[in-house]
Amino acid sequence: MQVMNSQIADIITQIFYKVKNEESLGEIAKYIPELSNVDAEKFGVHIAFLNGESFGIGDFQEKFSIQSIAKVLSLSLAYRHLGERIWTRLDVEPSGNAFNSLIQLESDKGIPRNPFINAGALVVCDILIDILQNPKEELLSFIWQFAGTKSINYSLRIAKSEKQTGFRNIALCNFIKSFGNIKNSPEEVLDLYYLLCSVEMSCEELSYTFGFLANKGKILGADQEILSLSKTKRINAVMQTCGFYDESGEFAFRVGLPGKSGVGGGIVALMPNQYVVSVWSPQLNEKGNSFRGMKFLEEFTTATNVSIF
Amino acid sequence: MQVMNSQIADIITQIFYKVKNEESLGEIAKYIPELSNVDAEKFGVHIAFLNGESFGIGDFQEKFSIQSIAKVLSLSLAYRHLGERIWTRLDVEPSGNAFNSLIQLESDKGIPRNPFINAGALVVCDILIDILQNPKEELLSFIWQFAGTKSINYSLRIAKSEKQTGFRNIALCNFIKSFGNIKNSPEEVLDLYYLLCSVEMSCEELSYTFGFLANKGKILGADQEILSLSKTKRINAVMQTCGFYDESGEFAFRVGLPGKSGVGGGIVALMPNQYVVSVWSPQLNEKGNSFRGMKFLEEFTTATNVSIF
Amino acid sequence: MQVMNSQIADIITQIFYKVKNEESLGEIAKYIPELSNVDAEKFGVHIAFLNGESFGIGDFQEKFSIQSIAKVLSLSLAYRHLGERIWTRLDVEPSGNAFNSLIQLESDKGIPRNPFINAGALVVCDILIDILQNPKEELLSFIWQFAGTKSINYSLRIAKSEKQTGFRNIALCNFIKSFGNIKNSPEEVLDLYYLLCSVEMSCEELSYTFGFLANKGKILGADQEILSLSKTKRINAVMQTCGFYDESGEFAFRVGLPGKSGVGGGIVALMPNQYVVSVWSPQLNEKGNSFRGMKFLEEFTTATNVSIF
Amino acid sequence: MQVMNSQIADIITQIFYKVKNEESLGEIAKYIPELSNVDAEKFGVHIAFLNGESFGIGDFQEKFSIQSIAKVLSLSLAYRHLGERIWTRLDVEPSGNAFNSLIQLESDKGIPRNPFINAGALVVCDILIDILQNPKEELLSFIWQFAGTKSINYSLRIAKSEKQTGFRNIALCNFIKSFGNIKNSPEEVLDLYYLLCSVEMSCEELSYTFGFLANKGKILGADQEILSLSKTKRINAVMQTCGFYDESGEFAFRVGLPGKSGVGGGIVALMPNQYVVSVWSPQLNEKGNSFRGMKFLEEFTTATNVSIF
Repeated sequence: MQVMNSQIADIITQIFYKVKNEESLGEIAKYIPELSNVDAEKFGVHIAFLNGESFGIGDFQEKFSIQSIAKVLSLSLAYRHLGERIWTRLDVEPSGNAFNSLIQLESDKGIPRNPFINAGALVVCDILIDILQNPKEELLSFIWQFAGTKSINYSLRIAKSEKQTGFRNIALCNFIKSFGNIKNSPEEVLDLYYLLCSVEMSCEELSYTFGFLANKGKILGADQEILSLSKTKRINAVMQTCGFYDESGEFAFRVGLPGKSGVGGGIVALMPNQYVVSVWSPQLNEKGNSFRGMKFLEEFTTATNVSIF
Repeated sequence: MQVMNSQIADIITQIFYKVKNEESLGEIAKYIPELSNVDAEKFGVHIAFLNGESFGIGDFQEKFSIQSIAKVLSLSLAYRHLGERIWTRLDVEPSGNAFNSLIQLESDKGIPRNPFINAGALVVCDILIDILQNPKEELLSFIWQFAGTKSINYSLRIAKSEKQTGFRNIALCNFIKSFGNIKNSPEEVLDLYYLLCSVEMSCEELSYTFGFLANKGKILGADQEILSLSKTKRINAVMQTCGFYDESGEFAFRVGLPGKSGVGGGIVALMPNQYVVSVWSPQLNEKGNSFRGMKFLEEFTTATNVSIF
Repeated sequence: MQVMNSQIADIITQIFYKVKNEESLGEIAKYIPELSNVDAEKFGVHIAFLNGESFGIGDFQEKFSIQSIAKVLSLSLAYRHLGERIWTRLDVEPSGNAFNSLIQLESDKGIPRNPFINAGALVVCDILIDILQNPKEELLSFIWQFAGTKSINYSLRIAKSEKQTGFRNIALCNFIKSFGNIKNSPEEVLDLYYLLCSVEMSCEELSYTFGFLANKGKILGADQEILSLSKTKRINAVMQTCGFYDESGEFAFRVGLPGKSGVGGGIVALMPNQYVVSVWSPQLNEKGNSFRGMKFLEEFTTATNVSIF
Repeated sequence: MQVMNSQIADIITQIFYKVKNEESLGEIAKYIPELSNVDAEKFGVHIAFLNGESFGIGDFQEKFSIQSIAKVLSLSLAYRHLGERIWTRLDVEPSGNAFNSLIQLESDKGIPRNPFINAGALVVCDILIDILQNPKEELLSFIWQFAGTKSINYSLRIAKSEKQTGFRNIALCNFIKSFGNIKNSPEEVLDLYYLLCSVEMSCEELSYTFGFLANKGKILGADQEILSLSKTKRINAVMQTCGFYDESGEFAFRVGLPGKSGVGGGIVALMPNQYVVSVWSPQLNEKGNSFRGMKFLEEFTTATNVSIF
């Protein structure tokens, strides 16, 4: 690992221990049985700068279930293939409701409010099944390409666990299908969806994987463009307004960076042209976002005075 | 007026005429009688850079009713006085509903989703009445201070016209009062609210007035801090996620700058540390935002490749 | 008072004491200050048969605030004048929401779901202002005509008390006005509405007043038709489906008679062609209906095996 | 067939031809492919009196898909077994929403508003699977018992057709399951549900089948009690308030009898202690109820001046 700007490393270290020592008011996600087996005290942070420097602390090299964070990757793949046509099947507005709400779908006739609520991610999976030969394999290859490593994989154990209790997702998928906005069989779509959510990464891998979104669409350390600058900016914009369910406004307000969270307790956020920062702590606040992750990032952007606003 | 970077002036000029010559699919706001008297073909653009350069084109020196754009100014004043305590009475989440919806207030027990929907702006007016001796005068003085000119005023004619047809706003204000989140009499709060919305500015005045939000909280051209850096960033964040009613996600997605619109057809947007840009065209799209204004800004940030994302 | 069927009197007496001696889980309405001053232990029952027999027990001759029960009387008056045209401004569907909800009005464009939620009663008051010369006087005369006595009156004290805290009703009235379904000034409509709700009657007076609805539209003891048979049946139908706010289904289910309740703790119910029964006990259940009143009526129709079903 | 009161037969005949000759503004249900193959002009009426008299006209002996009407029969069976305990899993309030809405389930935590919306009928099917050894066979036997004939059957063709397009129902069932209010597998519950809805009867069979609800819980022509008087009245009450989806208030208002409709175009209604009347015409109004059926019944109760109100 290259040595990085020592000041940032100091700031991260300081905030890391401060947050670690404060009481966490969060709780581990219970609704996916396998997720609830994680050690609640795990806590890791990793930052990767575009100039190649990086720094990690705590459990930053331990893999965890990235869950909804993976929805940014499936969207990127579908967006690359379909271009702006994708938005005929998805909107880009914050939902003002919980991540698994069915309410707005009813008035919006099956068009999900954005690609990061469950409904939207299901439609993206449906699209991937249409445009890819082997959706599961190609999606994983795409993730490997971002991450610069083949050490990343689905967790069949997690996918199976989520499937067994996924009645709400079955409901969502069939509800959208009833409006005609799912083309393939709900079973097939749900299978891909559960696999997608089961991807496991460490904070370190997460930072590198999301590097392209801070790097004008180019993979970190390579000169290869994955997405155009315009598409990259647009994904960042959607993360900013919709990346944290019904706490997206709060995240923009407190942290001020585009980012995405998952119920596994991971959060990734990025400062365009500068860095990607990843945090993992499995205890969630009542909105379903990592309690310590939110806290760390708020203190981090406050201390460094760097945010997109 | 200082000469500015000629390239930007050229880009603005080109896009201005392109958008002007395309058919507008918008319509003038009808619900405030006085607003509907405006010439629908008015169109002006003005940009002010932090380095003192600026450029305007079209009707950029003609005053118009800034309407909801003024809600950023009243929020700034209240936020400066109350600090973070203000958020006990307001949330910072996008609403997912129309600007004058009462639905979420019912489930949220009278706490408006954000300060830029009508409900939130009414609560801010209520706060101003509590903390200021002469709310109307002091609010105007505060605006003069931002703008660097005393040429800005309320339009009593517009305020009166809006009051006469403002049944929805009376409903909103009394509804919030029924939950206890309006402290003063609804009449008094509504009077200040209508005055606030009636403020008239030109694009040029608007750019300078909003300069502090691009300038780390300091008034343009002065070294005077109006808001702390942290508060400034937070207001920008709320503009980003909530500034365009139920089209906020779309604006972040297409334009990529924090901004605020009004039903008078004005939009102000800003690139932190660089510039403020104001547009005025009174024809609104179906979400209540200026049709040509949205289009101009989208093409402008695309052409310059500059946005916060 | 004529002697009546002694068996019914015995049944009523028995149930009256049973319910009186059981613990009440209700609470007095707090939201209208003057209403909260009533003695919570008041309890009266009165039944009037079409054949002239009647029976009362407990506080059945003490006046109380009939509140929403009066909405049946204002509707009857407006319906008599307008006929079926009235339903262009009101629907007859149960609301599935609380009595003062604004939610459905938003999607239904200002057409209240039925005449017995607050929104609907406000529209009825608006209609009365249009069709009557002196709405307050004529409405009261109409009630006197039903009741067969001029001893009934508005309570200015209650009306004033409700007005002072009636922000939710101001909100409702202005909200409907914003859709164009209130023609007069909201102030005027609300004044009549508060007076209407302030009417005071005893159980005994209430039974006689509602006699026409059990008597094919004719005033009890007179041969005078107030409403046609068809209109009378229709008002009974609307009471059945909408008379108890979001507990209307429950009342039909448990009691099985058309009826109407008020937050003053009164309930009137009727068996067409047989009798009207009135109950008063000010402690309300969580849906806003009299706890003991509901209980008494359930046990009464169970014991007598008489209901419309 | 016994001869009946000739006056009623004349009235029915007259109204039958009047309604038949008027333009129907309804449309055949399209969402179940097999249902859309029915001849749109079919029209039959049948009435059965408790005294044994009966009368039919038009296509009253032709079988049609009774669809949601069957929900009354499954409820009766479950209610007979479970008694009042059944209401811990179902409410009895009108929904104020469409028959297949998911909205209220979300706020009501998976407790359906009543047993006649799809959500409620699914919960009833789940209960039947728990309490019966062979739900499909026993449910059909129960219906045979009511009807007094074994000529009634499921239509596997209709059941299959509905299953193939039943994404909304799969969504509903899994949504309720996600709240824990479905105990068995959604597939099993849905299979029973589709069979239930596929039951085919003629108007004549329908009248006799529903006879017990007009006859104090006893099968017509037998002295056998199927349901207690109290339970019978309660089912009638729920039909009255919830039997016609979001048009239940309108049906109570216009027709004034407890009843139940199905998207196959059938309606059954009953006057307690007097008769059951069945109508079939497959063209539906926009609320999903038979256009001619509603019209016929409104004119019939108007002409006879008989209703429960």
